[in-house]
Amino acid sequence: MTEIHTLMVNDVPAFVLGPEDYAPLAALGYDIVEHFDTESLLAAADRADHVLTWDFETGWYSQFPKLKTVFTPAAGDDWARSDPSGRVPVSHGSYHGELMCESVLSAILFMNHRMPQMIRNFARREWDRTTQGESRMLSRQSVLIIGYGHIGKICAEVLTPHVREVIGVRRRPEQSEEAEIPVYGTSGLVDLLPLADHVLMLLPGGSDTDQFMNVERLTRMKKGAFIYNFGRGNALTAQDLLPQLNHLGGAFLDVTEEEPLRQDSPLWRQDNVFITPHSSAIFEDYRRLFIEEVCARLGKAR
Amino acid sequence: MTEIHTLMVNDVPAFVLGPEDYAPLAALGYDIVEHFDTESLLAAADRADHVLTWDFETGWYSQFPKLKTVFTPAAGDDWARSDPSGRVPVSHGSYHGELMCESVLSAILFMNHRMPQMIRNFARREWDRTTQGESRMLSRQSVLIIGYGHIGKICAEVLTPHVREVIGVRRRPEQSEEAEIPVYGTSGLVDLLPLADHVLMLLPGGSDTDQFMNVERLTRMKKGAFIYNFGRGNALTAQDLLPQLNHLGGAFLDVTEEEPLRQDSPLWRQDNVFITPHSSAIFEDYRRLFIEEVCARLGKAR
Repeated sequence: MTEIHTLMVNDVPAFVLGPEDYAPLAALGYDIVEHFDTESLLAAADRADHVLTWDFETGWYSQFPKLKTVFTPAAGDDWARSDPSGRVPVSHGSYHGELMCESVLSAILFMNHRMPQMIRNFARREWDRTTQGESRMLSRQSVLIIGYGHIGKICAEVLTPHVREVIGVRRRPEQSEEAEIPVYGTSGLVDLLPLADHVLMLLPGGSDTDQFMNVERLTRMKKGAFIYNFGRGNALTAQDLLPQLNHLGGAFLDVTEEEPLRQDSPLWRQDNVFITPHSSAIFEDYRRLFIEEVCARLGKAR
Repeated sequence: MTEIHTLMVNDVPAFVLGPEDYAPLAALGYDIVEHFDTESLLAAADRADHVLTWDFETGWYSQFPKLKTVFTPAAGDDWARSDPSGRVPVSHGSYHGELMCESVLSAILFMNHRMPQMIRNFARREWDRTTQGESRMLSRQSVLIIGYGHIGKICAEVLTPHVREVIGVRRRPEQSEEAEIPVYGTSGLVDLLPLADHVLMLLPGGSDTDQFMNVERLTRMKKGAFIYNFGRGNALTAQDLLPQLNHLGGAFLDVTEEEPLRQDSPLWRQDNVFITPHSSAIFEDYRRLFIEEVCARLGKAR
């Protein structure tokens, strides 16, 4: 039998897999061995042909003689590290854009509809027909995506029918002839920021992106424009954002500099800020999409 | 000169027009005469070639000998009544769907993302990554539109790329061969309600639609499904809805039985209900769209 060993433990309930999630793999002929802690997984290391896990340390690879693949749902390598010897590939989930694009569209409509203010009206049971009148049709507005990669492309596809224009910015623009979305390099930001009605940040973490959206860049944004962070929190800090909240229409943050965001962070009490707990990819469908991808990559057990 | 007399007064600031809004009509050669009360309009009745107004009473028509058209932004005839003699046509705004479709998409994503709960988490500064895990991808869900007319068609177009299926229901279904959206008569509801993940009500007011979505129909809805009322409040009453809120995922009400909704209505304090103040078409663009339509219908002044 080909053995798949799993260590799918996570703080987020939607990210914890169980026997019903593994059923499609079992149906392909794989033997599923579930583990709930590191010790148990490592004790069975010599039997594992594949591992499904959130975490995999660099030091573990040498203990897994038969290991052919590490499958992890995460898009990045923060938790499942790559094999220093290069022997075992790590297969990352590639469906995050499919999930996140719905959260991004939802957030843009939410801010465009002045929902932070509408929520306060609702809490006060106020029938206020003035607030909504500040909304402009999304179909006449533009979206600038900073950190335009795989996820950005999926977001752009979903946003395009609803907005006037989507523009991408990335460190190394690979503008192809057939691309429908114009893509610029970082140097283009100085001219693009003053034009965008909505700025969507999808930058990865790491020291390269620390305070990427700094005071200078935030100041260049159009008066009343909205900013969204669905990448990593280090790229847009509270220190830089807070003084600009009068200039901006508002901010929707799915990620923050430290997570969980401290209860005493002033971000929680701003009138035009809304915060979600790094949850843009948290859907009931997450587990199914992961297993579908593993099935597609593995095929039938030999 | 051809004179356009206006009485564009309204409680909603976004619905009050002023000289800058009329500029495109002036540019076409029309003489614009603004009024701010009924007495002033009626005193100038013999000079008016066209009237732009929110209100026009049946009794007024006989006082306007030259009147060729009454232009009103409203979609229905609740405020600008038709001419009993049939002499003067009333031109209603036809752009409400264009505006409302954005509010409808926003509301569906809002409820699908468990925003009523997420808002409470935010207010308590809770970094809760469990709530969002109850969301399922919208792309695998279905929407049933009840009262499928002009506005419903526009909503269906906007929703279609984001959902598995949109189905329309109307009193007199006119299913055409080329229609992409299947449309059923009211009798189909008994079979359709148990299947829909989101039920969007766009019914007009009037005694025909009183309590249309009654307890029997609400009970037939799928467990955990969401209901939206963007039509008129008489079709879904608090009395019918409240006992079903445990069965349903939640309700997003843009209209209510009486408006403004009374402060002591129990609807305000339900965990899975959100209410907006009949504001789905209130956008800054409203005035511009109205004047663009009047310009297109009138053309240049002779």
